[in-house]
Amino acid sequence: MEANFEQVGKAFIQHYYQAFDTNRAALADLYQGESMLSFEGSQVQGKEAILAKLTTLPFTHVQHQVTSTDCHPTTNGGILVHVCGNLVVDQESDKPPLKYSQTFVLMPLPGGTGWWVFNDIFRLNYG
Amino acid sequence: MEANFEQVGKAFIQHYYQAFDTNRAALADLYQGESMLSFEGSQVQGKEAILAKLTTLPFTHVQHQVTSTDCHPTTNGGILVHVCGNLVVDQESDKPPLKYSQTFVLMPLPGGTGWWVFNDIFRLNYG
Repeated sequence: MEANFEQVGKAFIQHYYQAFDTNRAALADLYQGESMLSFEGSQVQGKEAILAKLTTLPFTHVQHQVTSTDCHPTTNGGILVHVCGNLVVDQESDKPPLKYSQTFVLMPLPGGTGWWVFNDIFRLNYG
Repeated sequence: MEANFEQVGKAFIQHYYQAFDTNRAALADLYQGESMLSFEGSQVQGKEAILAKLTTLPFTHVQHQVTSTDCHPTTNGGILVHVCGNLVVDQESDKPPLKYSQTFVLMPLPGGTGWWVFNDIFRLNYG
């Protein structure tokens, strides 16, 4: 397996949730025209549509608490990242947190200057 | 987005869990030398190593109850499949089921004769 896929994947997850929880509009830089997002079964494609979806979700304050991060190299130089965790929404700290899982496929930017999100699938895990 | 990725992904999931829950050794046909599996953080590569891992897990009877399946086309003609569900282990039906999530990247076999598993990441979602 390739060398630094785990380092890249874990750094991405830290960056992604920090942006999501503090300045969601900054996530736009991670997506491109080809990018796809499924959020609780609702599927959109392209940077603008994804940003519109992420910034109009029905909660204001949210905190992601990651419990596991697994990274694999995948086809065509991509990195697959699978996360499980807790989601604390709108400071409802008296309620048990929601469990969630999320999967990303990251692709390298031209010139090795970073990574962009090809796929993003988010689900609450009600079980 | 491509036409039948959702159909392929959902048919794969049905086949995969049926084999897992009734004849785990049959899963070997889905993996190749490049395939990677992470099972609860333990990572193995290649058809033989993956089969050895899957057939020596510390439970005998298991039942996957899928609650959500999300499919995306991904890079290089692959299909990304993200599943959430419940896992009932060794007929412990008196206990609440464990929640899990699992992600696959499927790649087409040469000649369009089927699909193989490039990546497989499984996690219980303790949250």
